[in-house]
Amino acid sequence: MDLKSVIRDVPDFPQPGVIFKDITPLLQSTSAFKYALDILTERYQGERVDDVVAIEARGFIFGAPLALRLNAGFVPVRKKGKLPHKTVGIEYGLEYGSEAVELHEDGVLPGKRVLIVDDVLATGGTAAAAKSLVEQLGGHVIGLAFIIELSFLNGRRRLPGVDLFSVIEYHTPDES
Amino acid sequence: MDLKSVIRDVPDFPQPGVIFKDITPLLQSTSAFKYALDILTERYQGERVDDVVAIEARGFIFGAPLALRLNAGFVPVRKKGKLPHKTVGIEYGLEYGSEAVELHEDGVLPGKRVLIVDDVLATGGTAAAAKSLVEQLGGHVIGLAFIIELSFLNGRRRLPGVDLFSVIEYHTPDES
Repeated sequence: MDLKSVIRDVPDFPQPGVIFKDITPLLQSTSAFKYALDILTERYQGERVDDVVAIEARGFIFGAPLALRLNAGFVPVRKKGKLPHKTVGIEYGLEYGSEAVELHEDGVLPGKRVLIVDDVLATGGTAAAAKSLVEQLGGHVIGLAFIIELSFLNGRRRLPGVDLFSVIEYHTPDES
Repeated sequence: MDLKSVIRDVPDFPQPGVIFKDITPLLQSTSAFKYALDILTERYQGERVDDVVAIEARGFIFGAPLALRLNAGFVPVRKKGKLPHKTVGIEYGLEYGSEAVELHEDGVLPGKRVLIVDDVLATGGTAAAAKSLVEQLGGHVIGLAFIIELSFLNGRRRLPGVDLFSVIEYHTPDES
């Protein structure tokens, strides 16, 4: 199945000059959504995954069904102030300004094997932040999984030494 | 399974006097998460559901696996400005201030049978807004499904004439 055919290019979103990869057509097609999840499930089925840590908000859409399929716990990483219990947090730089994400202190127990899931790997800032939070709690990040990798943004460079997998790769900004 | 045993009370969140029902322990327990989804799946399996419309962000966690199980499309309702394509939007009142949510114009096609999913039914404002957006696009809301219903807030009153189902019900603010 050609998953790129169910990803929509939205020019100038969220800011002028950026071509946004919109996954909502993929989600609306049950066969495409299932196919993408099947690829992720097959990739990680053989490994022991204790927890799927998914990044707010689109990461939840893939992380939740994947956690259920892998018999793993589902643990959310959220923007600052959204998680109600005691958290660990981290701030990281974006192109303009900064962002802060949090994880519940009891979200990952020491020694647990964690798979981090998000929809898109762009510059890797959010994924690196999530990885750092999991490691702060003593968890072992066994992999990072994405639906889309914008490889021209070199996000992998910020995530050395960890298995990184993406279902769909775009090599240039204007590839459709 | 006693699902209330995996829901954590967090006092004074998000503001003083409120006891927040934290579902993260439920999500961390694969058996509890599966059990909650099984209840929802059984409830709607017999009906034809074309699309599951889930409300950002926690609604995604239940809506995505439910859509896959029901062979329905997954369609997100998001806060204003988050969806990249053309949207319909609605503003609705909260206790303090207001909130605005959006749905892609092509998220629901006329005549489609839609199940709306969120984690918590409180006063019903967000669910009523989501229902209104689906109907604006010509969709037919066949049901509203929640994991938790805070029935003492009377959210059902704002959602008359539609099938409404919740997995867990709290009758008073201090019920655990």
